[in-house]
Amino acid sequence: MAHITLPPGLQGIRGPMAFRPETAKPLNELVEVLLHAPNSLTPGERELIATYVSYLNDCYFCQTVHGFIASAHLDEDEELVRRVKADFQYADISPKLKTLLVIAGKVQRGGKHVTAADVEQARAAGATDIEIHDTVLIAAAFCMYNRYVDGLATWQPQEEDLYRERGKRTAREGYVTVSRDYIPQPTPTTV
Amino acid sequence: MAHITLPPGLQGIRGPMAFRPETAKPLNELVEVLLHAPNSLTPGERELIATYVSYLNDCYFCQTVHGFIASAHLDEDEELVRRVKADFQYADISPKLKTLLVIAGKVQRGGKHVTAADVEQARAAGATDIEIHDTVLIAAAFCMYNRYVDGLATWQPQEEDLYRERGKRTAREGYVTVSRDYIPQPTPTTV
Repeated sequence: MAHITLPPGLQGIRGPMAFRPETAKPLNELVEVLLHAPNSLTPGERELIATYVSYLNDCYFCQTVHGFIASAHLDEDEELVRRVKADFQYADISPKLKTLLVIAGKVQRGGKHVTAADVEQARAAGATDIEIHDTVLIAAAFCMYNRYVDGLATWQPQEEDLYRERGKRTAREGYVTVSRDYIPQPTPTTV
Repeated sequence: MAHITLPPGLQGIRGPMAFRPETAKPLNELVEVLLHAPNSLTPGERELIATYVSYLNDCYFCQTVHGFIASAHLDEDEELVRRVKADFQYADISPKLKTLLVIAGKVQRGGKHVTAADVEQARAAGATDIEIHDTVLIAAAFCMYNRYVDGLATWQPQEEDLYRERGKRTAREGYVTVSRDYIPQPTPTTV
């Protein structure tokens, strides 16, 4: 049972987002810019970073839903998502993404773990400053989302099928659009 | 030196916020809602939670600037801020805030550390569901901001005086307003 009374029937982060629309708005806008907006890193690459960090933080809801959003972007390759979580150095992803996942894993432990050598390796593999920036912020942001979801003990049913279709839809439509389904919208003021 | 090339002369989070205005916008809106907007927890109480979590994450920039924002809200009581960091159970703060700081400290370690008993204690001390929610999200959010600031190795000069006046101004005007000083604003489209 969640630590506070949340709207019923909403999994994971959706419960507290519906409970507190004022904070849900910037939380959804942040993840939209980081994971869904146009970027030189593909949505699939960015979702893999989010999934990997959520796995390191042992957040069932986030690693599952973002894992399915990632695979929706990656030709439904759910096995690739599992390999990235298990040992990304042996997964079929680009050398550049491997260097970014190293940085993301360091950020998960704490910002000061990232070294100049880690960043140099990413740059040598072709990463730009903005890609390094976004990797650090995606990893940092999921250290927030994961703690938010688990710190309130939100409802996280453990059947993967409950997450797959929703992941596909979020991959297509983005976070802000999908969030309108479950977050109460402000009533327009009548003049 | 920061890991990526950031606009010069901007301390801590201000550098990457000026570098990437698209993510700065939701990051500032989130902290504005959590720490500055009207709330049954005072701004001073909420800034103490942010300062405490930033201290636990060993982020010099965030614990210093939010420490000064907190003291600006608390009759300039900088000693109180130091005591909260050193051992909040002996600080002159309300029993309710002590229970919320316990929860915040658990969130800093990971969301699953928060127990039903922690939440029950907060409720017994008078905390509402929304106050518990906001405490969890403030703590989670500072696990993000701290990692963002340190994961990019931002410039953080170690002279407290450089932070005091800025803290007072942010306490008065809020995050979104102050951020307009250093974040490039989108150019209006000419029709």
